[in-house]
Amino acid sequence: MTDFTQIDRYIADHLDQSLDELGLLVAQPSVAAQNWGLVECAALVKDMLGKRGFQVQIQSTAGAPVVFAEYLLPPGSPGADKTLLIYNHYDVQPPEPLELWDSPPFEPSLRDGKLYGRGVSDDKGHLVSRLHAIDAIQAVDGGLPCNIKFIIEGEEEVSSINLKQYIHEHAEQLAADVCIWEFGGVDHREVPIQYLGLRGICYVELSVETASSDVHSGLGGSIFPNAAWRLVWALNTLKGPDERIRIPGYYDDVDPPSARDRELMAQLPEVADEYKTRYGVSSFLKGLTGGTALHIAEVFEPTCTICGLTSGYQGPGSKTVLPARASAKVDFRLVPHQTPERVLRLLRAHLDSEGFSDVQITFLGGEPSGRTDPADPFVQLVVETAEPVYGVPMQVVPLTGGSGPNHPFIEVLKVPVVAAGIGYPGTKAHAPNENIRVDLYEKGARHIARIIKGFASQL
Amino acid sequence: MTDFTQIDRYIADHLDQSLDELGLLVAQPSVAAQNWGLVECAALVKDMLGKRGFQVQIQSTAGAPVVFAEYLLPPGSPGADKTLLIYNHYDVQPPEPLELWDSPPFEPSLRDGKLYGRGVSDDKGHLVSRLHAIDAIQAVDGGLPCNIKFIIEGEEEVSSINLKQYIHEHAEQLAADVCIWEFGGVDHREVPIQYLGLRGICYVELSVETASSDVHSGLGGSIFPNAAWRLVWALNTLKGPDERIRIPGYYDDVDPPSARDRELMAQLPEVADEYKTRYGVSSFLKGLTGGTALHIAEVFEPTCTICGLTSGYQGPGSKTVLPARASAKVDFRLVPHQTPERVLRLLRAHLDSEGFSDVQITFLGGEPSGRTDPADPFVQLVVETAEPVYGVPMQVVPLTGGSGPNHPFIEVLKVPVVAAGIGYPGTKAHAPNENIRVDLYEKGARHIARIIKGFASQL
Repeated sequence: MTDFTQIDRYIADHLDQSLDELGLLVAQPSVAAQNWGLVECAALVKDMLGKRGFQVQIQSTAGAPVVFAEYLLPPGSPGADKTLLIYNHYDVQPPEPLELWDSPPFEPSLRDGKLYGRGVSDDKGHLVSRLHAIDAIQAVDGGLPCNIKFIIEGEEEVSSINLKQYIHEHAEQLAADVCIWEFGGVDHREVPIQYLGLRGICYVELSVETASSDVHSGLGGSIFPNAAWRLVWALNTLKGPDERIRIPGYYDDVDPPSARDRELMAQLPEVADEYKTRYGVSSFLKGLTGGTALHIAEVFEPTCTICGLTSGYQGPGSKTVLPARASAKVDFRLVPHQTPERVLRLLRAHLDSEGFSDVQITFLGGEPSGRTDPADPFVQLVVETAEPVYGVPMQVVPLTGGSGPNHPFIEVLKVPVVAAGIGYPGTKAHAPNENIRVDLYEKGARHIARIIKGFASQL
Repeated sequence: MTDFTQIDRYIADHLDQSLDELGLLVAQPSVAAQNWGLVECAALVKDMLGKRGFQVQIQSTAGAPVVFAEYLLPPGSPGADKTLLIYNHYDVQPPEPLELWDSPPFEPSLRDGKLYGRGVSDDKGHLVSRLHAIDAIQAVDGGLPCNIKFIIEGEEEVSSINLKQYIHEHAEQLAADVCIWEFGGVDHREVPIQYLGLRGICYVELSVETASSDVHSGLGGSIFPNAAWRLVWALNTLKGPDERIRIPGYYDDVDPPSARDRELMAQLPEVADEYKTRYGVSSFLKGLTGGTALHIAEVFEPTCTICGLTSGYQGPGSKTVLPARASAKVDFRLVPHQTPERVLRLLRAHLDSEGFSDVQITFLGGEPSGRTDPADPFVQLVVETAEPVYGVPMQVVPLTGGSGPNHPFIEVLKVPVVAAGIGYPGTKAHAPNENIRVDLYEKGARHIARIIKGFASQL
């Protein structure tokens, strides 16, 4: 076994420095949905990698640029035949609602062992903790033990709309043996979790326009079509209170969990009480109360979620107006074998057949689900190297509820994709007061250092 | 017949001056829904009446102050036994959406014979045109021929939430023989219209909270309740695409139009094409195509209108969030004999019985419908004095679609309430680019002068 005493000491001794660097990155807003600060943030990321000896390129796409970086050992030297690819993203979610933040989202704030700020967890903290691990290896060993490539995109929070094409076009440049995914972390028991699959997603905006301008509700209420009502009725045809999605054919290509999937899911701890406390919900849908059934429903069932509703007057008090326009953001989470293309086709046909041809569908992004084989040796390495850091065995989860563009990594680059990172349940990703725990930031860096060195020496 | 040559000349000669005064009033924002500028606007109105010899008081309510003004003739002098009450309001609708205005809403702009600005029509233009008529009578006759009282409230656009109580408490002070309502005007044929009744209203906000904070949609979509879905399903139980309101008992106390009502409605001109052009709608609800059926449906049927929808992420692009909160603004227009109190009670019972006890109802204001008898002599006076001004007979409409607090005027103060004013179909009240036509502003003042003098000399 390699001795990690010196590497761990370097990581601990230089922790404040690394958090300062993370703070600089968080202070640069980079909201993909609002096209805010992306180019500036990409430039900052380029500098951070460049000063660690990586060759860095900012590569354009149809949307936000991708930062590609590589550290290649001289051909023939030990480790030069092994390449580890790391995927991260520099974009973040919108900070709204601003009034619910205890400190401004783009002014990183360290309080009680936590660092707060938009993107500090999702995903800038993961990226900088990995750089911290690389710093430690370079400082202690005088260099890196294998080739390392970074692909850091700027549109993950808007469904990675251009990444699939980027990967197809740059498959050779990205060639690698294994891949570390953008996230990872511990659950509410402090047990590190290995997520081996992501759900897919199909994100749409549904919109209706019934008139050229809003009308006084006293005039039009009885005789004019109302865009808000049209939207409500159209949405109501998609899903009812029984939570069954009513689009004909929607469930046809759903791949149910395998026996091995169920076995792994059954090993997960009870989360019911913890979810209720954390999110302030009083009960779960479909009569679920907890246990393996809750775990399986959480990830193996496709969803139809209203993410936002917009119509008419939304200010304080009353305004008597009949809205000419209404729209909803709707996110379908896809399980293995469902595709965004098919969901779009079924959705259009369904709305038409229900009499809602006036409801427009705007596709805002999507990707299929992707999964890595639990038996892959790299998965085993990541699981084994976690225990000395976290003090407990890593738990393997076959599929998680979130989405991400792992499908082209697995299917085009043909790499196993693993999770390792600094996350924890209270991180509030996508919500106000997003934060990371400093202790887990340190552990995450130590784990990454072990993965890199373990991969380089793996047969 | 009184000769109005001199009065009409005064009104024409001093038109610019009056419009300048209106411009000053419009430049003072006074948005009741946003509690913006109300006290400042009331003070401005007080000054305008004071300099015309009215005794003016600013009287407080639980909300925005009421401006009360009276011009009383010495007891025993001719006309001192007759009192005309004028009702107006100094508050305006919110100016949003700002980007759709061609000139800023609170910077009055005169273009092509029209004056633009928020409130220029609803209701500040009506008020100032009446002052202009009063100026003309005073200038020509050296005084007013009867007592005149003004009640000018500041919460009409938020359902006059405190006016009913104010009228009850100040009934003696407000004592009068007749009342001129806040609005009036011509239709698309340039025919002046006499509206003798208003629908009532019950305006509520429906809100749902399903968790203490928004949740990442990838996590919660399959297992957590979603406030936006709860709201959609609850709204869907209120009304379906057949436009029938599904609240049990809702139609029980609806008073259908009388034979005389139908007779008057049948005299109204066709509006179908004009509505389609003006509002950019392609068809009407319930298979209506026009004619008397459209007129009757427009005002004699109670409504349930979604005025606004709010939930989750509403910005550009996508945000994968499961909303913890959702709300809708909903306006019920009431026909004679329906009351807001009963609608609230039925709505609560209905939501509970449909499984939506989690949907909160916040009452944002309301009032019953109120109607004046078409046979009242003051109504006849207003109709007769319109023809010399407009060149065509005034048309009497028994009920109109809008709402207002006429019920306590009719039921508590026991006055007939008539409409006379400067409105026209293109006025865009409650919408961007609200405007008045200068020619109608002048005609409105001429008509008011005739009503005042006619009322004073009426037996």
